[in-house]
Amino acid sequence: MDYYGSHITKLIEELSKLPGVGSKSAQRLAFHIINMPMEQVERLSGAILDARTGVRYCKECFTLTDKELCPICSSDKRNHKVIMVVETTRDLAAYEKTGKYEGVYHVLHGAISPMLGIGPNDIKLKELMQRLQGDVEEVIIATNSSLEGETTAMYISKLIKPTGIKVTRIASGVPVGGDLEYIDEVTLLRALEGRTEL
Amino acid sequence: MDYYGSHITKLIEELSKLPGVGSKSAQRLAFHIINMPMEQVERLSGAILDARTGVRYCKECFTLTDKELCPICSSDKRNHKVIMVVETTRDLAAYEKTGKYEGVYHVLHGAISPMLGIGPNDIKLKELMQRLQGDVEEVIIATNSSLEGETTAMYISKLIKPTGIKVTRIASGVPVGGDLEYIDEVTLLRALEGRTEL
Repeated sequence: MDYYGSHITKLIEELSKLPGVGSKSAQRLAFHIINMPMEQVERLSGAILDARTGVRYCKECFTLTDKELCPICSSDKRNHKVIMVVETTRDLAAYEKTGKYEGVYHVLHGAISPMLGIGPNDIKLKELMQRLQGDVEEVIIATNSSLEGETTAMYISKLIKPTGIKVTRIASGVPVGGDLEYIDEVTLLRALEGRTEL
Repeated sequence: MDYYGSHITKLIEELSKLPGVGSKSAQRLAFHIINMPMEQVERLSGAILDARTGVRYCKECFTLTDKELCPICSSDKRNHKVIMVVETTRDLAAYEKTGKYEGVYHVLHGAISPMLGIGPNDIKLKELMQRLQGDVEEVIIATNSSLEGETTAMYISKLIKPTGIKVTRIASGVPVGGDLEYIDEVTLLRALEGRTEL
């Protein structure tokens, strides 16, 4: 039954299609939206449409951006000879927030997953290999520490090794501030294997 | 820093203003939206704008609807002599979902709260009293079982009593399926006071 009138019902329906938004939170959001100031509603509605229509891949590193070249690839303050390979634009943002990484990135948009039927041709791997034709000193593989991420890291390192370019992998181990008691065994073993001399 | 380009950053900003949406979930939603099919994005964006511009109060019961008179007030299958008073349109929807209530509603849009400075004139109470000039047999007060809801219920019943119209309050007690062990003491006492003979 349509208790709310068609406009609100339609909004609730569209909102509940979003990930992590159930029917209760869609209702709550809808009632919040109809009580928001008109200009905020216009900004939200416009931002949704603009983001979808205006977004594109950086032609160099394939991150999501709204220009031909993303701000990082077009910056001359970055070291373009060091490329960090990440799975998603969000992973790129996570490293950017550290403020310490000075190289550039390459966004794969996924990871190799035989289980999900995602092969090397389904991610931006060809494009990475093309970039390595240029002047590159190091490729840092920063895919996730999951089965898929590790598979992808292995695959990429095998591809790159013959070119003579240095390939590294970010360390895996106990997170800073992590309590050993609550950390899974695989991570504990990784941390042990990767131990460094003090 | 603008890691994502201005369109996505703006979308994340607007999304994170919504209740219950933190910056992490706003990011997740934004990336979901830019990967949605274009027509779904248009529907979502349009539904937000339409809901805000198209919504109005029913002139009879003040629920949110998109016509002059809501479907319940304009239905001749409902008993217009019985009015259930609720705080919000969502409470109305909750009772409608039971499918068993055959009367009509009156939505107050709030409850009296001296603490928040909400007085009887800030909710649709005058409008309720006006409706009672007509042919009404019973007013069922279904405000929430909170301090504000109870205060409002007491206030309304005192206002209506002199008119001779029957005023009732929905029962409060242990929820069906509720485990006594986990129910607060006030509810337990209410359930005891409201006990009925078997």
